[in-house]
Amino acid sequence: MNHEDAFLPINLAQSEPYRWQGVSEHVYKADGDVSSFKDVTRRKLFIDPEKSGIELRYFEIAPTGHTTLEKHDHIHLVIPIRGAGSCLVDNKLIKLEINDVVHVPSWAWHQFRASDDDHLGFLCLVTCERDRPTLPTKEDLEILKKDPSVADFIRAHQIS
Amino acid sequence: MNHEDAFLPINLAQSEPYRWQGVSEHVYKADGDVSSFKDVTRRKLFIDPEKSGIELRYFEIAPTGHTTLEKHDHIHLVIPIRGAGSCLVDNKLIKLEINDVVHVPSWAWHQFRASDDDHLGFLCLVTCERDRPTLPTKEDLEILKKDPSVADFIRAHQIS
Repeated sequence: MNHEDAFLPINLAQSEPYRWQGVSEHVYKADGDVSSFKDVTRRKLFIDPEKSGIELRYFEIAPTGHTTLEKHDHIHLVIPIRGAGSCLVDNKLIKLEINDVVHVPSWAWHQFRASDDDHLGFLCLVTCERDRPTLPTKEDLEILKKDPSVADFIRAHQIS
Repeated sequence: MNHEDAFLPINLAQSEPYRWQGVSEHVYKADGDVSSFKDVTRRKLFIDPEKSGIELRYFEIAPTGHTTLEKHDHIHLVIPIRGAGSCLVDNKLIKLEINDVVHVPSWAWHQFRASDDDHLGFLCLVTCERDRPTLPTKEDLEILKKDPSVADFIRAHQIS
């Protein structure tokens, strides 16, 4: 289980758009397969393990970049707030608009991609307690790629 | 405890800005003291009582309107996404900017107000399980109003 320290500012204001005062930029994934994603940063906006169990992050993908294609038990609630992009959730391709709400259900394959000429920034809500992601096997990728539009969308290195 | 039915769309897209497909507008509070708030609507965007325990709502306050001055055990995480306004959290007055993150801690008095000439729309995250709000007594209001800027800000009818 992932369980980070509490971070509970009352007023987390921005110093400039999409940058919050005192909030550091992190690499998307400090461990794991760095070839599974491209040009993604992560910011921790709220972590409340004790009271609500809610954690809020902001991810930003540079043009042509993408997150890791993965799945896990915990859910995501994603709200795009900057730029343009699209995502795969399960076998569904979704064009993202600012302030849409995307739910990644438990064990649904998912990947987020920025457009070729704009950043994609999104809020991502999770529970503080959550499991580690699973990456696709060769067989998983073969199944996903049976849909030509999904095959064209995904950016993935198989793990076995 | 408040516990609503699950609402878990994978792709909750907007039909127009700040209006989501298939999501109804509700009155801010169906019960309680209707004189405690002014010109506020509520939309339910995500309700997941089983898996994550997370609920996401969108509130919109018309110009000059305000939410109820109240406090409760459960916390709020608030992200303004439309217009302009300000809020009181505890004894702190906060000018709101789009994509700021405001945390209303447990038992902190809080009230949100739209500006005089613009709407204020904000996402509000809560746990699905939560207690009912407490309204201020005459004594509570007297204490809050010792700070002249707070006295000037709040819009409240005492309950006793």
